[in-house]
Amino acid sequence: MDKKKGSLLSFRPDIKIVDATIRDGGLVNDFRFSEEFIKDLYEANQRAGVDYMEFGYKASKDIFKEEEFGPWKFCDEDALQKVIGDKNTDMKICVMADVGRCDYRKDIIPRADSVIDLYRIATYINTIPAAIHMVEHCKNLGYEATINIMAVSNAKEAEIDEALELIGNSPVDGIYLVDSYGSLYMEQIEALADKYLAMAEKYDKFVGIHAHNNQQLAFANTIAALTRGVSYLDATASGMGRGAGNCSTEQLLGFLKNPKYDIIPILKFLEKHIEPLKKTGIDWGYNIPYLLTGQMNRHPRSAIAATKDGRKDYLNFFLELNDKD
Amino acid sequence: MDKKKGSLLSFRPDIKIVDATIRDGGLVNDFRFSEEFIKDLYEANQRAGVDYMEFGYKASKDIFKEEEFGPWKFCDEDALQKVIGDKNTDMKICVMADVGRCDYRKDIIPRADSVIDLYRIATYINTIPAAIHMVEHCKNLGYEATINIMAVSNAKEAEIDEALELIGNSPVDGIYLVDSYGSLYMEQIEALADKYLAMAEKYDKFVGIHAHNNQQLAFANTIAALTRGVSYLDATASGMGRGAGNCSTEQLLGFLKNPKYDIIPILKFLEKHIEPLKKTGIDWGYNIPYLLTGQMNRHPRSAIAATKDGRKDYLNFFLELNDKD
Repeated sequence: MDKKKGSLLSFRPDIKIVDATIRDGGLVNDFRFSEEFIKDLYEANQRAGVDYMEFGYKASKDIFKEEEFGPWKFCDEDALQKVIGDKNTDMKICVMADVGRCDYRKDIIPRADSVIDLYRIATYINTIPAAIHMVEHCKNLGYEATINIMAVSNAKEAEIDEALELIGNSPVDGIYLVDSYGSLYMEQIEALADKYLAMAEKYDKFVGIHAHNNQQLAFANTIAALTRGVSYLDATASGMGRGAGNCSTEQLLGFLKNPKYDIIPILKFLEKHIEPLKKTGIDWGYNIPYLLTGQMNRHPRSAIAATKDGRKDYLNFFLELNDKD
Repeated sequence: MDKKKGSLLSFRPDIKIVDATIRDGGLVNDFRFSEEFIKDLYEANQRAGVDYMEFGYKASKDIFKEEEFGPWKFCDEDALQKVIGDKNTDMKICVMADVGRCDYRKDIIPRADSVIDLYRIATYINTIPAAIHMVEHCKNLGYEATINIMAVSNAKEAEIDEALELIGNSPVDGIYLVDSYGSLYMEQIEALADKYLAMAEKYDKFVGIHAHNNQQLAFANTIAALTRGVSYLDATASGMGRGAGNCSTEQLLGFLKNPKYDIIPILKFLEKHIEPLKKTGIDWGYNIPYLLTGQMNRHPRSAIAATKDGRKDYLNFFLELNDKD
């Protein structure tokens, strides 16, 4: 059964690029970006044809202290408006809200009073009902909404099926396939994409992909998913994101054939902001500890710690990972 | 038509790992490896279950000056024997010979007098008849032989078909799909693999894959090829190889399920030799200039120069590449 969607020379108008640099990249530097970085990225994304730009999290100020993070941990409306102004653009704005870490009833205001278009609700598979509650809240306020099921590589088939059915019956617009640990191979991504897409088709939703680069498969897995019909593609400038990072915007822009996409503004942004940021010691991207947690389908936290400590004793690290079983 | 070979949990006994660290990595440091590096890699590969180890090139000493390169540009028999000794191992030894750059009639001696098992004949598509001559010479002397068609991303379909038919009728043992520019996507690798495999089945040959990492697709393309039935998989320690480098041995060992494979000796080797080598300034691996030459299906030479010069003016580099048309 050949279910390939699209070809290498044509383009699919349903494809959307979602820039998640501030949100996933913010996990690397506690959301402390300069104002110029944010403004230039906002400008570059528009010029590059990016469809959605994610600014960060809508995190609870009861749980997280404001002084410990930059503003994009909370995405207050006035911080957003300072960058976006009158919002004279086709590019949509999104923000992530984690189940259990967001005072959504208080902090998410009606869309008419906000510059935000889409809320992405991040959940583990065991908190889907809470995620659906949040989606209902957001939809009632006029927003688009997605559910992003994290760490799906650790979920059982039957759980995924049940979760998808629950989500299908919710008012959500889209559902995200998330490879949190960067552990999945293309064959697994394709099988999961087919499963998500079957639900999506039945209930008239779309499917997105958020890949991590632990095994240097983030771009490959994104291509694999879109080839099956997944249409919302997460990417970040230079792959900036937690641990091994993400599929990079510049990789994706070189692959997609929609003439509205343009790599040049992103190359300029990399020159001006990413290279200097890396020089300050902010660090992400593929290395051996990330490869090993990816291969073993583990949370990257031990690899993040090993990277921070500059550990190069790969064998010990590998043995420690094995010991944790 | 589902032509998938194998599954994620089982293993295919026809799969062989070919370590090309010295040969492709030698292009980065002019083949100047320490004796300890070579000996430890030889040992590590054996322990890791690697099937073939490529030591370098059989290059003409009329064309290349011996004083400008380390010994693995020439792979003299006594240099090899110093490492290999009595060859008390199942791991086979291979060497690459380029069409037009090898005095094969003089320098390739009978297999009975050599520690080499396999000659890999590297050719562009327009010198296939010369490559077949070299294969006949090697086969007559008792060696295994492959033909590695380089830069296939620049060849036309009809040329490839004709080349494969010529090669099929030669005494060669295997034929290699080589993505010299790191420009091919999995879909293209799969289509080429199917083409190569159809010839291979008809004439009883095997097919190998040699991928480059310009777009961070070397591992993904290697998986894509093996999933179609390609069985000889090139890899290098830490991906060491020209420009953006190759599929890494440690990635591949994490994926393959044959119990004979073991990642531990390679992790030890990376610790002891690759990290110190990188510290000396020897540089390879993915970066933005390599991504751009890959996207545009160009020889990586301009990206190698840009990397050497530490260029971060990505936009200018991109515009220069476009100007070369």
